[in-house]
Amino acid sequence: MATSKADTMFKEFKEHSVAEFFKKNRQMLGYSSLGRSLVTVVHEYVTNSLDACEEAEILPDITVAITKVDEKRYKVRVQDNGPGIPKAYIGKALATILAGTKFHRYIQQRGQQGIGAGGCALFSRVTTGKPIHAISSTGNSAFSCDVSIETVHNKPIVTNQEQIEKPGFKGLSVEGEFADTKYEMGEHSVYEYLRRTALTNPHAQIKLIDPDGKEYLFARAAENLPPKPQATKPHPLGLTVNDLLEFAHHSESRKISSFLIETFARTTQGKVAELKEVLRDVDLDKDPKEMSWSDAEKMIEAFKQIKWIAPEAIAIIPVGEKQIEVALRNILNPEHMSVVERKPKVFRGGVPFVVEAAVAFGGNSGRKDENGETGYAGNILRFANKVPLLFDSGNCAITAAVRDIQWRRYNIDLDSQPISIMVNVSSVHIPYSGVGKESIAQEAEIIEEVKLAVMDAARGIQRYIANKERIHHEANRYNTIMRYTKQLSSDIADLTGESEEKVEKKLTKLVAEHFPKATEEEEAEEGPGETKEDAEEEEE
Amino acid sequence: MATSKADTMFKEFKEHSVAEFFKKNRQMLGYSSLGRSLVTVVHEYVTNSLDACEEAEILPDITVAITKVDEKRYKVRVQDNGPGIPKAYIGKALATILAGTKFHRYIQQRGQQGIGAGGCALFSRVTTGKPIHAISSTGNSAFSCDVSIETVHNKPIVTNQEQIEKPGFKGLSVEGEFADTKYEMGEHSVYEYLRRTALTNPHAQIKLIDPDGKEYLFARAAENLPPKPQATKPHPLGLTVNDLLEFAHHSESRKISSFLIETFARTTQGKVAELKEVLRDVDLDKDPKEMSWSDAEKMIEAFKQIKWIAPEAIAIIPVGEKQIEVALRNILNPEHMSVVERKPKVFRGGVPFVVEAAVAFGGNSGRKDENGETGYAGNILRFANKVPLLFDSGNCAITAAVRDIQWRRYNIDLDSQPISIMVNVSSVHIPYSGVGKESIAQEAEIIEEVKLAVMDAARGIQRYIANKERIHHEANRYNTIMRYTKQLSSDIADLTGESEEKVEKKLTKLVAEHFPKATEEEEAEEGPGETKEDAEEEEE
Repeated sequence: MATSKADTMFKEFKEHSVAEFFKKNRQMLGYSSLGRSLVTVVHEYVTNSLDACEEAEILPDITVAITKVDEKRYKVRVQDNGPGIPKAYIGKALATILAGTKFHRYIQQRGQQGIGAGGCALFSRVTTGKPIHAISSTGNSAFSCDVSIETVHNKPIVTNQEQIEKPGFKGLSVEGEFADTKYEMGEHSVYEYLRRTALTNPHAQIKLIDPDGKEYLFARAAENLPPKPQATKPHPLGLTVNDLLEFAHHSESRKISSFLIETFARTTQGKVAELKEVLRDVDLDKDPKEMSWSDAEKMIEAFKQIKWIAPEAIAIIPVGEKQIEVALRNILNPEHMSVVERKPKVFRGGVPFVVEAAVAFGGNSGRKDENGETGYAGNILRFANKVPLLFDSGNCAITAAVRDIQWRRYNIDLDSQPISIMVNVSSVHIPYSGVGKESIAQEAEIIEEVKLAVMDAARGIQRYIANKERIHHEANRYNTIMRYTKQLSSDIADLTGESEEKVEKKLTKLVAEHFPKATEEEEAEEGPGETKEDAEEEEE
Repeated sequence: MATSKADTMFKEFKEHSVAEFFKKNRQMLGYSSLGRSLVTVVHEYVTNSLDACEEAEILPDITVAITKVDEKRYKVRVQDNGPGIPKAYIGKALATILAGTKFHRYIQQRGQQGIGAGGCALFSRVTTGKPIHAISSTGNSAFSCDVSIETVHNKPIVTNQEQIEKPGFKGLSVEGEFADTKYEMGEHSVYEYLRRTALTNPHAQIKLIDPDGKEYLFARAAENLPPKPQATKPHPLGLTVNDLLEFAHHSESRKISSFLIETFARTTQGKVAELKEVLRDVDLDKDPKEMSWSDAEKMIEAFKQIKWIAPEAIAIIPVGEKQIEVALRNILNPEHMSVVERKPKVFRGGVPFVVEAAVAFGGNSGRKDENGETGYAGNILRFANKVPLLFDSGNCAITAAVRDIQWRRYNIDLDSQPISIMVNVSSVHIPYSGVGKESIAQEAEIIEEVKLAVMDAARGIQRYIANKERIHHEANRYNTIMRYTKQLSSDIADLTGESEEKVEKKLTKLVAEHFPKATEEEEAEEGPGETKEDAEEEEE
């Protein structure tokens, strides 16, 4: 019977928790290969530490210690000097997925989803069955406990909680044991992740203790805290109809007019008066709880018809031009670079973001990726909210933007020249492509703004490269001609009866007069590239 | 005070539902650009229809109707002749995220996560505020209702439910209105998605009614249902320690030994006896509920020490060589192709999967992508469980595998030759990289198997291409030499006093004798490429 078919099928119908979902699909959280999984654990705990320190206005001091337990099995400990986690929250903060303090905030933060730490607890649970061992002190006394995640209900299990003596310690230390991991070196490693993190967060001190016990200190380079991002109100131009409606229905205000002023940025009495002019169909005196979808739709349309001051960027603190230069010098040691910081822009109508970009030439720029390919993948250093993005470059708005640029216009060839590009996108809400937060979704406005920033930086370096290329080219021509001078001198001497030495001297002078600049600048130049001497050596 | 800092911070600590998460991050579900969002809606409903029909053993008859409401706003209706959804489940099936019948099954299905339909309801809700209108009949009588998702608690709201007269109708019809969408043509379109779906599912009949009212019928090409995938038990080699432990703790069996035989594939009394030999530390007579992590660890190790029959592939039904040929002929109309179906393999130790691959040459193969680039992105037709993957190619195991192949060994140059590659990966659990299910995670075993399949297909086409290239090359040489024959004849005539005509005739004959095969085959060849006549025209 047909009816019974559907009924039978739906007997299996079940709801399941988000933890069960990610247990089955842990690759979506970044736990997809041995090396990447280890980086993901470090990334999640370190970004949480940086965020917590930033919020508590503490200069971060973070230690990451990695111990090898076994082939494919490592312990990771991350300890910070942050505000710590109160006892009542330790379980949920470390072992629940989709729980945290950051989700609804309108402020730039590295984490934003409340998935990271819970994901680590899940990964440890399913690969080793072990809990996360935590030590926390919020300033008065320290406690330790074991925390693990019960996936069916996405709930934490806290055991062995006890007060401990740890004089002088304030902050959080988490330690977990993770199988299906591997400590590796290279471009996609824990070391590289921490190095890049330190470079874009110069106020942080980060120490890595590797499985051989070797210590690497990424020392604090700036003694002052960067400006603290301030939470802002949402800008009217960044709202969807649904957003507006939800804000309205949760509002305590008595009238829509006062609700608007209280809830949104840049919304003054004057603006409300302007709105009234274009919004004849909606009564701004009514209770915001009674706003309908159609009211909200009309209001969103009206928002677009009047002029607004752009959103404040106080919620966004970019890396800064100087620090980007320091970072690039450290990572790539380029001959020359050009750094650009753009003004704040908005995407989706009103979510503010800031793009910084740099193009570097020479040094270790433009190195090949693991597949031996230069070009897009290996040459772009991507950052979001100062966090390095090491994986999933193929789907990233930054990669798409760089690929979209007509590099020939700048006389740049990414495939053959030693060029690297660095981009940092900062925003109160980075639209990541995936839950693992390793790439930025290809929103048209973000791609466009990244393109403009990178093109701007490309212009800044174009002259340098063109000049370099010209010198190189002329030197090549000079060298090529000089190669024939000797043979030619001998031939002319034979034909004319002049002494070969004399002819050669004259010819050499003649050639040199034709390439005065090339030879002069070539001598001043200390960079690589074939020099006159090299060429002559080759000739002999 | 330090203590109060952490306490203050954690006052904002909240849990939020998975629906709230995806409301904020809808790009992770595939709702990231206008065109892609529309394809995502169609994809989610159509795969659900195909799965439901397959399970109910019905030849699918699916209509997708798209109506333009407004710039960037479309209605989508998907109607099938499947088993329908019982009244009691309609809300949760269409408007809850992470709910469904498929999550815990060990069987190949297009959907698997219970996110798709709920995601559509969410996308409609946040962009238009409208519910999904559903009509369902499980065979006896039809009912209609409106379903929307309440995101804070991830719960469905069902309204306007009523019995309706729809004689003869059995199946499900869903209709929603979605803003932030656009109907486009091209490689990433609804049309292309449905065309490719029809090609790999020849037993399905799919009709598309586009916004202009134009109808496209992808007619049923196979009148028989494909073999139905059978749910299998998990194979011992595919288990993690955690899996084993969870199965054990939920088991009704009284002893571990009987639990193993009842729960897992290929596990017989004989195998249990073998296990006992290598497993001295674990008592297989004890209650499975008392199995500890350490017991489970030892057992997983022991599983690896004895020989197992490979997992059955009855849960996996690939497309089949013949149908792949039909599909490729339809999509690319190539001159030549080579199709390979590999034997079932396992990843993560025991999850069975099957790879099919084809390499096609000529016709529309190797076309450029939107960025005008040939190479990896545009030339790979990716499928997972017969569902076309149109987006996120950069992060896909299939792309990685194709990139990894040393194509030069096969005398193939993907950048310059008209070559396309098709790969279908079928499995009971496709490890998608993201929630939007548009790319396969880069699991080493899957990449390796795809590589082997594609290399096998490449070998099959290598001779054809090499021969083609050789002919082309010789024809080029012939043409080049012929260009000089006229001039040479005239010069020789001048030098020797012979008649120019006679010399030219002799020379032409001489050259023709040196390239007999090239000229013969060139004449038989109707393909593109410079012919003798073209070359002579150029000369004049």
